[in-house]
Amino acid sequence: MLVNGQPADTISVQDRGLLYGDGVFETILCESGRPVLLAGHTQRLENGCKRLNLPVQDLPTILSDIRQAAGDDDCIVKVIVTRGVRPRGYGYDKQDNSCTRIVYRDDIAEISGDYYQTGIELTQCQHLLSSNVSLAGIKHLNRLDQVLARSEWDKEFQEGIMFAANGNVIEGTMSNIFIESKQQWITPKLDSAGVAGVMRQWIMRNSYHADMECIESDLKLADLQNADAIFVCNSVIGVWPVKSFAGRNYPISLAVKRLMEYMHSNLSKFYLV
Amino acid sequence: MLVNGQPADTISVQDRGLLYGDGVFETILCESGRPVLLAGHTQRLENGCKRLNLPVQDLPTILSDIRQAAGDDDCIVKVIVTRGVRPRGYGYDKQDNSCTRIVYRDDIAEISGDYYQTGIELTQCQHLLSSNVSLAGIKHLNRLDQVLARSEWDKEFQEGIMFAANGNVIEGTMSNIFIESKQQWITPKLDSAGVAGVMRQWIMRNSYHADMECIESDLKLADLQNADAIFVCNSVIGVWPVKSFAGRNYPISLAVKRLMEYMHSNLSKFYLV
Repeated sequence: MLVNGQPADTISVQDRGLLYGDGVFETILCESGRPVLLAGHTQRLENGCKRLNLPVQDLPTILSDIRQAAGDDDCIVKVIVTRGVRPRGYGYDKQDNSCTRIVYRDDIAEISGDYYQTGIELTQCQHLLSSNVSLAGIKHLNRLDQVLARSEWDKEFQEGIMFAANGNVIEGTMSNIFIESKQQWITPKLDSAGVAGVMRQWIMRNSYHADMECIESDLKLADLQNADAIFVCNSVIGVWPVKSFAGRNYPISLAVKRLMEYMHSNLSKFYLV
Repeated sequence: MLVNGQPADTISVQDRGLLYGDGVFETILCESGRPVLLAGHTQRLENGCKRLNLPVQDLPTILSDIRQAAGDDDCIVKVIVTRGVRPRGYGYDKQDNSCTRIVYRDDIAEISGDYYQTGIELTQCQHLLSSNVSLAGIKHLNRLDQVLARSEWDKEFQEGIMFAANGNVIEGTMSNIFIESKQQWITPKLDSAGVAGVMRQWIMRNSYHADMECIESDLKLADLQNADAIFVCNSVIGVWPVKSFAGRNYPISLAVKRLMEYMHSNLSKFYLV
């Protein structure tokens, strides 16, 4: 574990990351120490820092930290950047560029092969996602919405879909969602809520490898219920096809199988097919 | 500084308070070591723990921590309760009652007497408060809305008023707001956004000492613009009358002066009159 590049496993109790969730993070899959989808993660980190007016991190420094934390392992590396310790209160001195950079490794949780081969069971979360254009898309440290939504079930489901107050489908608690409809993939727009996932971005750019077009659009519950297929994704799990949602069963489409095969061959052996 | 009752000034980088803002906090004014409005703070802390399914803290333990942190000083004591360190992911084992309890003292920032005697300059924040009935009222650790709103000005104003997306006035970045209109005090309802302040609650219960009735209601920008007087409050600053907002000047009403005198005599010498 590294805190500002030095071996440490703690931070100050006065760090604004703890006090206010004033920071951003990335969770990066590493294969034999090699970060998967690294450019997507570092770009989102930089974008998040800019949006929150946090000091933009020096890329070589971040990479050096990640390499040091990951070693040659298959693992997860978590990168957190906070506004650090400042005088008490929400305000902060904009000339002060101090921050806290935390990088540490974690084990990859074992994932059942069934989730890839036969699909997952998806539920609908009752807890609604907070909407706010200023925070939409960023992977910031204010994650109580996800904590409350995930607490609605235990092990009966593998993921839950979250809605905004206007009825729009936004994302899973830890993933983004795509539906297949009329030979097209559609994923919710994230301009007022949600996290713009690195894997979501990769799929949108690479859907043609699965012979599919992919668009962003507003989606409602009925769009999920009427979809030909559904899948969720993130950069650690890859793609999980959905086999059941709201009393309906869904097939794993040929296009989703093509996507998973392409992803497995080109990104990570962990994205089982 | 105490972490789970032991002298310490750091927490694990894997604490959910940092990773997700998964916790609640209180900021308590202490006079010669005596916590002001203690019951209000401990009740809100307990309520917040219940709402977030955090372990409810043992009251004597909290009090002992606060006394130890405050000593005989005039100071601020901050109490934070998080869900502690758990396996990675938003989900958590509901049978696991582990948590992190952080208690530390901070200096009371010097406040200009002018803020009490002639009032403050109030601005309107452009950043909107996220609305969510599940999180409304709680003093949780997800405070990016306040951080972003407070960053809109430097020292030109002493507080900024935040609105919800529906146009309702909710609160200040660090305070609650009351308007005086037709011999009545009105403070926004906080059922979908905002923090239910301990001082706000105390004022609602004690307004009769200033010969005023006090009600909760939805308020819009026009209500502020048309108000006879405005004040903001929190448990550290007491009451700050507003002298200007959105191009208009406001008087300090007799009722607000009576409230401030009563508060100064009965709660804290720091609430200057």
